[in-house]
Amino acid sequence: MADVNPAFVLQSIKNVSFEERPVPTLRDEYDVRVHVEQTGICGSDVHYWQKGRIGDFILGSPIVLGHESSGTIVEVGAKVKNVKVGDLVAIEPGVPCRRCDHCRSGYYNLCADTVFAATPPHDGTLQKYYVVASDYVYPIPKHMTAEDGALVEPVAVAVQVIKVADLRAGQTVLVFGCGPIGVLCQAVAKASGASRVIGVDISHSRVNFAKEFGADGVFLNQSKPKEGQDPVDAARAVAEQIVAEYELGDGADVVLECTGAEPCIQAGIFAAKKGGTFVQTGMGRENVVFPITTACIRALTIKGSIRYTTGCYPRAVELIASGRIQPRKLITHRFKFDKAEEAFELVKKAQEDTLKVIIEGVGI
Amino acid sequence: MADVNPAFVLQSIKNVSFEERPVPTLRDEYDVRVHVEQTGICGSDVHYWQKGRIGDFILGSPIVLGHESSGTIVEVGAKVKNVKVGDLVAIEPGVPCRRCDHCRSGYYNLCADTVFAATPPHDGTLQKYYVVASDYVYPIPKHMTAEDGALVEPVAVAVQVIKVADLRAGQTVLVFGCGPIGVLCQAVAKASGASRVIGVDISHSRVNFAKEFGADGVFLNQSKPKEGQDPVDAARAVAEQIVAEYELGDGADVVLECTGAEPCIQAGIFAAKKGGTFVQTGMGRENVVFPITTACIRALTIKGSIRYTTGCYPRAVELIASGRIQPRKLITHRFKFDKAEEAFELVKKAQEDTLKVIIEGVGI
Amino acid sequence: MADVNPAFVLQSIKNVSFEERPVPTLRDEYDVRVHVEQTGICGSDVHYWQKGRIGDFILGSPIVLGHESSGTIVEVGAKVKNVKVGDLVAIEPGVPCRRCDHCRSGYYNLCADTVFAATPPHDGTLQKYYVVASDYVYPIPKHMTAEDGALVEPVAVAVQVIKVADLRAGQTVLVFGCGPIGVLCQAVAKASGASRVIGVDISHSRVNFAKEFGADGVFLNQSKPKEGQDPVDAARAVAEQIVAEYELGDGADVVLECTGAEPCIQAGIFAAKKGGTFVQTGMGRENVVFPITTACIRALTIKGSIRYTTGCYPRAVELIASGRIQPRKLITHRFKFDKAEEAFELVKKAQEDTLKVIIEGVGI
Amino acid sequence: MADVNPAFVLQSIKNVSFEERPVPTLRDEYDVRVHVEQTGICGSDVHYWQKGRIGDFILGSPIVLGHESSGTIVEVGAKVKNVKVGDLVAIEPGVPCRRCDHCRSGYYNLCADTVFAATPPHDGTLQKYYVVASDYVYPIPKHMTAEDGALVEPVAVAVQVIKVADLRAGQTVLVFGCGPIGVLCQAVAKASGASRVIGVDISHSRVNFAKEFGADGVFLNQSKPKEGQDPVDAARAVAEQIVAEYELGDGADVVLECTGAEPCIQAGIFAAKKGGTFVQTGMGRENVVFPITTACIRALTIKGSIRYTTGCYPRAVELIASGRIQPRKLITHRFKFDKAEEAFELVKKAQEDTLKVIIEGVGI
Repeated sequence: MADVNPAFVLQSIKNVSFEERPVPTLRDEYDVRVHVEQTGICGSDVHYWQKGRIGDFILGSPIVLGHESSGTIVEVGAKVKNVKVGDLVAIEPGVPCRRCDHCRSGYYNLCADTVFAATPPHDGTLQKYYVVASDYVYPIPKHMTAEDGALVEPVAVAVQVIKVADLRAGQTVLVFGCGPIGVLCQAVAKASGASRVIGVDISHSRVNFAKEFGADGVFLNQSKPKEGQDPVDAARAVAEQIVAEYELGDGADVVLECTGAEPCIQAGIFAAKKGGTFVQTGMGRENVVFPITTACIRALTIKGSIRYTTGCYPRAVELIASGRIQPRKLITHRFKFDKAEEAFELVKKAQEDTLKVIIEGVGI
Repeated sequence: MADVNPAFVLQSIKNVSFEERPVPTLRDEYDVRVHVEQTGICGSDVHYWQKGRIGDFILGSPIVLGHESSGTIVEVGAKVKNVKVGDLVAIEPGVPCRRCDHCRSGYYNLCADTVFAATPPHDGTLQKYYVVASDYVYPIPKHMTAEDGALVEPVAVAVQVIKVADLRAGQTVLVFGCGPIGVLCQAVAKASGASRVIGVDISHSRVNFAKEFGADGVFLNQSKPKEGQDPVDAARAVAEQIVAEYELGDGADVVLECTGAEPCIQAGIFAAKKGGTFVQTGMGRENVVFPITTACIRALTIKGSIRYTTGCYPRAVELIASGRIQPRKLITHRFKFDKAEEAFELVKKAQEDTLKVIIEGVGI
Repeated sequence: MADVNPAFVLQSIKNVSFEERPVPTLRDEYDVRVHVEQTGICGSDVHYWQKGRIGDFILGSPIVLGHESSGTIVEVGAKVKNVKVGDLVAIEPGVPCRRCDHCRSGYYNLCADTVFAATPPHDGTLQKYYVVASDYVYPIPKHMTAEDGALVEPVAVAVQVIKVADLRAGQTVLVFGCGPIGVLCQAVAKASGASRVIGVDISHSRVNFAKEFGADGVFLNQSKPKEGQDPVDAARAVAEQIVAEYELGDGADVVLECTGAEPCIQAGIFAAKKGGTFVQTGMGRENVVFPITTACIRALTIKGSIRYTTGCYPRAVELIASGRIQPRKLITHRFKFDKAEEAFELVKKAQEDTLKVIIEGVGI
Repeated sequence: MADVNPAFVLQSIKNVSFEERPVPTLRDEYDVRVHVEQTGICGSDVHYWQKGRIGDFILGSPIVLGHESSGTIVEVGAKVKNVKVGDLVAIEPGVPCRRCDHCRSGYYNLCADTVFAATPPHDGTLQKYYVVASDYVYPIPKHMTAEDGALVEPVAVAVQVIKVADLRAGQTVLVFGCGPIGVLCQAVAKASGASRVIGVDISHSRVNFAKEFGADGVFLNQSKPKEGQDPVDAARAVAEQIVAEYELGDGADVVLECTGAEPCIQAGIFAAKKGGTFVQTGMGRENVVFPITTACIRALTIKGSIRYTTGCYPRAVELIASGRIQPRKLITHRFKFDKAEEAFELVKKAQEDTLKVIIEGVGI
């Protein structure tokens, strides 16, 4: 009996359905075919579903959704050496062109021709089988589960943020946001030798979770700009409160902004010490009011982090394998493949108690 | 006959006068006393005169103005080795505390306790004599003039900008602003091996000057936002025009923003290539609307440059001494010491044909 | 009754004695006077005692010995802010000139005019009182002891080694040597996020200690070059054995050489991966036979580490205060001040079971 | 009439011959076929011819020689965009695997699976046609000749050396060796903003050439170790002479060692300033006596440079195209393809007046 390949497909904006797709075949001798086991849902998946675009990536034809996945190798090309049939692997969702200057310089995260799962026009991993280049799958040890494997992706995002921040052991780190990426950045910073890591959020339950998950301290921001107060002044006041409460002196060595929210970006600049580093990772509004003179006088280094680079996946696997980071604690909801739409609906609601939602693959 | 020390003093906002001050004496064995010969006027001098403050520095009591100076050594402390009486020197105007973490880490430009000439409450150099630590004066070769010596200061500012930008030979550099700092950044970038340096300004005469002074190309921006056009979109359009005209591909490797103007800051972000660097050096509005998502997606490195660090003055002296940079070309007006107020009035007018105004010292 | 200041003085080669020295006084308003409580003995102290010189530093007149000390502040200058009378502090033994290019660039460890305790012609800390610049003493928290305070010095040496190595979280680290500096480098590497740290030594008891102290694995090297074997080939074989046993693939990301022994230096180069880093910290023979072609083909980065730079002492204090590093475990022998010579005799013997020897101050 | 592909083949040690090889065909849609026009001879070509091996690369079966080539594109794969038929290009001789960690991190020069022209078992470019991946050929402007194009290779080697040295504008650079790579390193250093570049050699004619080609100064070393003098002491004395003659103060900021000769390596370490950088690029003896303690105390950074990385070829093309580097001045002898063996014989002799020998391709 011929094998089948059910897929969860975004047909058009707000319109998803299950579909039988042909079983994908290897394109060259370096490819592998993976039987997808677990897939986490990410904000960007929901964004494409609801809006049909992110920046210049526009949904033009149906695509399979999903890009945070693990699975079992079921077929390998003739030249594949790093994995074999039966291995449980984490899948890095973007395979770059390997030929442009970004790729050749080690910044493949900037490659314009990356084939990225579930980014139009490329299909994602919410199907039974997924074919990918073998150097973009990473075997995971026996004591890690397929759920752990799917969650290597957000951990790898956090590893890249820490790399972009050029974090050095002994530094103080302030993280805006205690959602999945925020708490993972906190935990990776800690595992990277940060002396103190402080998480900031406006949600009671999220800061509580952050405190348990890895932060040395948390700050629950419940202040609102006062009547007539300039919003930037209000943000500066919040920054000063945080710095005072945690005795950060001049400010934090490193600020990681994982919300994309304008007041957090502003507060983050004011909370960084002279000569410090600010990394933007969350995406929100295209343009924000930005305290450029403070950034300049303080001689800050401000950087953006996007996707992952070489070493992020192996490092993420190692952090999970060693137990230093336990991303399964982030999973609040689990769904079977045929309930994928319900899973998406849940993420869309963005309730305070929803952290990570994960979907089991077909035939697991 | 006792020596005298006439000084040009900012008494209070908009109120300057000449005063006889005591001849300053050496404070320790490492100090030197300089007979000031030439002093350039900088925008910040005028700002204190007109507004009485810059950021947290507030005029509380009278101060002598001026901080871009050269002069002749007339007295040296017992432990001074680098200069001797009679040497012509460039004076670095800020002497840091040498004891804080910033000083001890090599970032004395960030020292909060710097004694900076003409920054309240510290006196500046528009007096006959100035006493300063010997390691903050730099001897200049015989073939350089005292005017060259005074202009070491803005050249050193540009050297620091290039250092902050971490400029590598072969990179393309886009400089917003063709005023004194802009054109000096262009020239220092060129002398540092930049493959192509493009200057941008809205003034015809300034871009023409930039072209002669060192830029490989210039862009005269005369576009205005269209009726109803979002200003950020307008800035992006300008950026795209520049990139297209100079075939910068993905964008410039390095963008140096030397105007502080909001549209230039915005255009600068859009004109930087993925993985590129943007340095803010001009100061304008406290807060600006900033294309944060573009900065993040392009994984830019954004930095602020302020003052100078070790090596900037010697490098600036060397660039002038070798003839690679000829800052005297920037001088458009010269005044005697007793006409200092007229010099300040001229700079205040900020006319297009006024680049650098310089005041000769007393008794030269 | 006037206060006294007994001191342990190296009069000439192999000739030490106790002496009454005048109580030292503050030289300026930034100085502090410390009542020395505990002092560790370092190989260099013994070297001066036995040989009278290290490199260009030659004993010309008597000097007080000792430079790894803690103590209590008993007097502070008028401008001292960071400590007060009664504080227990760790003393950084070298105070640089603050004026040379190295100092001004953040590399004060390279300052040629550093006043370094117990380095001719400067007196050390084995006296009742020691006067030093206040920014070179570091308060330590209540739960740390004076012994911990004295051992901040070797921990700070290890912190500098890790800084020089530019160690990144997730890297593999191979450390040659399991003496005090070796095991501290291993522990600091681990605390800095190294994924695996392997210690190498020829002593059974030392590798056992290293295993307990912080290494993830150890390698006891008992091989000797075979009859007629080229020593470099023998070193390469050891390197290959270590790499194989610990599955380091291409080699370790970072190799720290803390012995100064020629075969270890050679093995270290062969054990580093392509593009990896090798740091030399131990000092042995002036010149060694060095596999330069391998170093070149592998594009290694080879660096020397010496003394400490800004941040090393605070970071060392923090690592001890948090319990991540417990240097007191290194102490194998304790002596009273009047038994200082016995302590030196013991260190001179360099027995396998002697790690750190410490001398209690006068009047403790 | 079918096309032909004559090739100059190393059959076995010291045994070369001309052979008719099949015209090579494109292996995938990204390949191009080049009609080779000019090929420079490099020491490594001669080494394989005479010795049959370099390090782990051993001649097992016949290979075509040659790897410094330019040529005209005669065929392009369907996906090639950067060049078209008829373009004159420089050929980068090593195409890496694109899949290993080194490749993915931007260090493809370290890839163990690189297909490198004329490195066993891979064929080189001394044949009529050569097929290579399109991103490893670089179009050169009309005003550059095919000879210039062939010489892009050694210029790119020098560009990589400067990159490895992390050279900053304003630094002083001392280059040991005034052969082709030495003088090119001098010229690239100068074009990268080095303030002063000094070349060292033992040959009169070579230092004279270096002086004309780009060095600010040269040092002709004619000293020999004195009877009974330690060779390392002799090397140190030479270093001190150079530093004194060129007033390099503490030593050079950057030392580039382009000879591989033991005394030069030693002198280079002694001639580097504290905190300075030494780059080894020439290859000589496997092991050398090395002043490791000096390297350590001076906190030097010592690196090896090998091959090229992304950006080296474009930068080299730009330096030649702009006229800043004129590598054709290096050509001392030209041969027709059928005289290739004579060309190799000449290079083997290594006469003082032989710098670069170049062979014209078939059918040019």
